[in-house]
Formats: sequence, C-alpha cells, structure tokens
Amino acid sequence: MSVTPRKAVCLLSGGLDSTTALAIAQSQGFDVHALSFQYGQRHSIELEKAKLFAKSRGISNHIVVEIDLRSFGGSALTADIDVPKHDTLTQTGTTIPITYVPARNTIFLSFALGWAEVIGAQDIFIGVNALDYSGYPDCRPEYVAAFEHLANLATKAAVEGKQRLKIHAPLAAMSKADIIRAGLALGVDFAETSSCYDPTPEGKPCGHCDSCLLRAKGFAETGQADPLYAKFGMPS
Amino acid sequence: MSVTPRKAVCLLSGGLDSTTALAIAQSQGFDVHALSFQYGQRHSIELEKAKLFAKSRGISNHIVVEIDLRSFGGSALTADIDVPKHDTLTQTGTTIPITYVPARNTIFLSFALGWAEVIGAQDIFIGVNALDYSGYPDCRPEYVAAFEHLANLATKAAVEGKQRLKIHAPLAAMSKADIIRAGLALGVDFAETSSCYDPTPEGKPCGHCDSCLLRAKGFAETGQADPLYAKFGMPS
Repeated sequence: MSVTPRKAVCLLSGGLDSTTALAIAQSQGFDVHALSFQYGQRHSIELEKAKLFAKSRGISNHIVVEIDLRSFGGSALTADIDVPKHDTLTQTGTTIPITYVPARNTIFLSFALGWAEVIGAQDIFIGVNALDYSGYPDCRPEYVAAFEHLANLATKAAVEGKQRLKIHAPLAAMSKADIIRAGLALGVDFAETSSCYDPTPEGKPCGHCDSCLLRAKGFAETGQADPLYAKFGMPS
Repeated sequence: MSVTPRKAVCLLSGGLDSTTALAIAQSQGFDVHALSFQYGQRHSIELEKAKLFAKSRGISNHIVVEIDLRSFGGSALTADIDVPKHDTLTQTGTTIPITYVPARNTIFLSFALGWAEVIGAQDIFIGVNALDYSGYPDCRPEYVAAFEHLANLATKAAVEGKQRLKIHAPLAAMSKADIIRAGLALGVDFAETSSCYDPTPEGKPCGHCDSCLLRAKGFAETGQADPLYAKFGMPS
C-alpha cells in the first residue's frame, strides 16, 4: 500500500537558508512544491541557483513568480542604493539595515498561501531564522506565528474547516553553523547556493556584505571551508 | 500654518466598493496613494476604470503592480473556468464561490504594506465588506484584524516603535445600498466604475454574475437607477 505524500509549498531563494529548509521539508516526507520570486533583486544569480537546486533535488513543481518590488523602492537590494560592506559583522539584530526589503516575506508568504490553497497543501516552509540574521522584522518567530494565524482566517479550506495551515520555520532557532551542519547532513551542496547581496554576474560573492559575513561566521564555527570559495577563491 | 496631510495607501480595483472606500479616505483628509493590480483578471476593464477614477479624484500617486496569479490557477476570475451566472442571488455567504481568488486580499494587502512602509504611511484602506458580499473568507472583519496584527510585527517602523499601522475597512459593516449612498454623497460617479466579473471588452456588465446581482440589489434598495445601465442599457 502506498501513501501519497503530503504536499508542502517551500519558499526557495537559492541561498543557504532556504535550500536547507527545503531539504528539511523533503526529509520530513513532504512532496515539495518550490516557489521562487524574480523581484528585481540585484543578486539575481540566486534565482539561477534556485532553479538548479530544485532540479537537483528532484522537484518537478517549481514556480518562479515575477513581481516588481522596485516600483516601491526603499531597499538596497532592489533600488539604486549601495549595499553596505564591512570587514566584520556589526550591529546585527539591533537595527534594521538598508538591505531590508519592505514587506518582502509577507508578500512571499502570501503567494505561498495562494498556491498552497490551489494545490490543497496545508504546509508552507520558510527558511527564516532569528539568531544569526540581519535583524529583519519579518524573520522573527512572532511574525511567523502571526502569519499562520492570518492564513487560517484567509483561506477557503481553513474557513470551511477542511484543513489547518501550518507555517514551518525549521531554522528559526538555529545558528548559522547549525543550519550549515543540517544542510550538509541532508546532502545540500552549498557550492551551488548563493548568499551574497551583491555578487558579480558570475556569482562570485563580495565577501563583505552582512550576508557574506554571516555565512563566513557560520562556516568558521563548523570548522569547514565554504565550498563556494573553492570555486571562486577567497574574497579580497 | 499648513498641516501636511497623512498619507494612506488605498487598494483600488475600480469597482463600486473600492472607489467608495477611497472617497471615504479622502473625506477623512488622507493624502491617498492608490494601488491597483494587473493580476490576470478576465475583467481587466476595471483597471481602466481605476486609472480614470484615480485621475478624476486628483490622485497623482497611483501604482499598478503586475502580478501573475494565473500561474496558480484555481479561480474563475483568472483561469479558464466559466463565471457562474444566475437570475437571482443564491447562497451568498454560505459557501465560497469559484470566483474567489486564492489569497488575493492577502497578496494585495502585503503589497500595500510594502508601499506604506516605503512612503511612511501608517494607514491602509481596503474596500471589503462582509454584509452584501460573495462570502470570500478574506473579506471578514476577523481577517482584517489579523492582517493588522501581522502588519505591526512585519515592518521596520512598527518594530522600532515609530508608528502603528492601521488597516481601515470602512465598508465592513455597510450594506451595498449604504455603500452606494456613501459613495454618491462623496461624489463618486458610479457610471465610471465596473463591478462585473465577466463584462464585454467595452465594459458592458453581464448582469447575472454575483457581483452584478449584488450591485443591482444595492441600487434597488436605494431606489435609484444604476448609472452604468444608462450607458449600456439593461442586461438581457
């Protein structure tokens, strides 16, 4: 007797966190439907990584939704504002940086909710974490809980009592090093992920944005070399 | 001494409800920033109406965001499913009809939240109502309250304690007739709105979808003729 696996929608940016979150969803037996966005991000290499990653994990359902967050402006990730560069991590979690994209996770989760409703999925995975993170408000556990509450009032199936939606944030309480260890244990090839906010067109990370520095800190804590740098060489 | 009016983002579909909600926001002194969506709706005439309406109300900030909800399918308003037609209203509020678009209001409000954050607005208006409505889950007061709660956890300004976001749903408890009376009192020209889910390319309403029937019921209760029909003639 075969059991049809439960469907889950997984947000997939192509970075270290979302690829690990997706691998966790697969390890829990979900039939993963991956959802990515072309949102005018300056680091669009991560979208290419997302496509390759989904394919490498045998995911046949991967949608890339095109939305234009640039029409609002307001972020270094989408507008003509320079991405801040440092030599060491500063102020993480105490102020919200200019790389924050207004309402990005709310928009992404909303689309995930729409797709979940159409395919009859009760589970949505998002790779946010609130420990080694950039201090974005929409990465915190209380935010995720509020979205889950909303989701259960917003949809036809939830209102009709047919299902209860769950927003999974499996990385919520993990350090970057823990995430890397979990990803490696589940076979994630981090050489094929992209974390940098301002990479070259070929995907070489800048090494100095918050995201590069968090990633480097994580790999340092695991005692392993980041395979991305084996490919591109260490940043200057 | 002049006072700079507070900014508000108003969702504007071009229908009877959203145009009235926008007029109410203006009557309360808000500097309205109108937000519409091209979402693959089959009734795209309402978007033309939205543009003309915003212009007629002196609104210089009107953004139309293009998103493709058709990639998910699942609704008669975006997919190749026929819009149901009736001679009288049936089952309103008891079941959720096929014209429901999965997570539509959640997606729309998420974009409104992003724009509000960028322009520093604390107020978002949405023209949902839960009395003479089609039974969509994301039109109910508890849904609107849940989104407001989420919004206050999602944004930089809210987290930093600089502002509290409010989601206004001024039509929430109004009947369709009340909405029409309010709109007329505020100078809304309903001949220039479009409510039909399945109009002709020129904008002639079908007269038999839920939205046409709700609109007809509302005008009947006010004792006034719908000016839209003065233009196109009564539906067959």
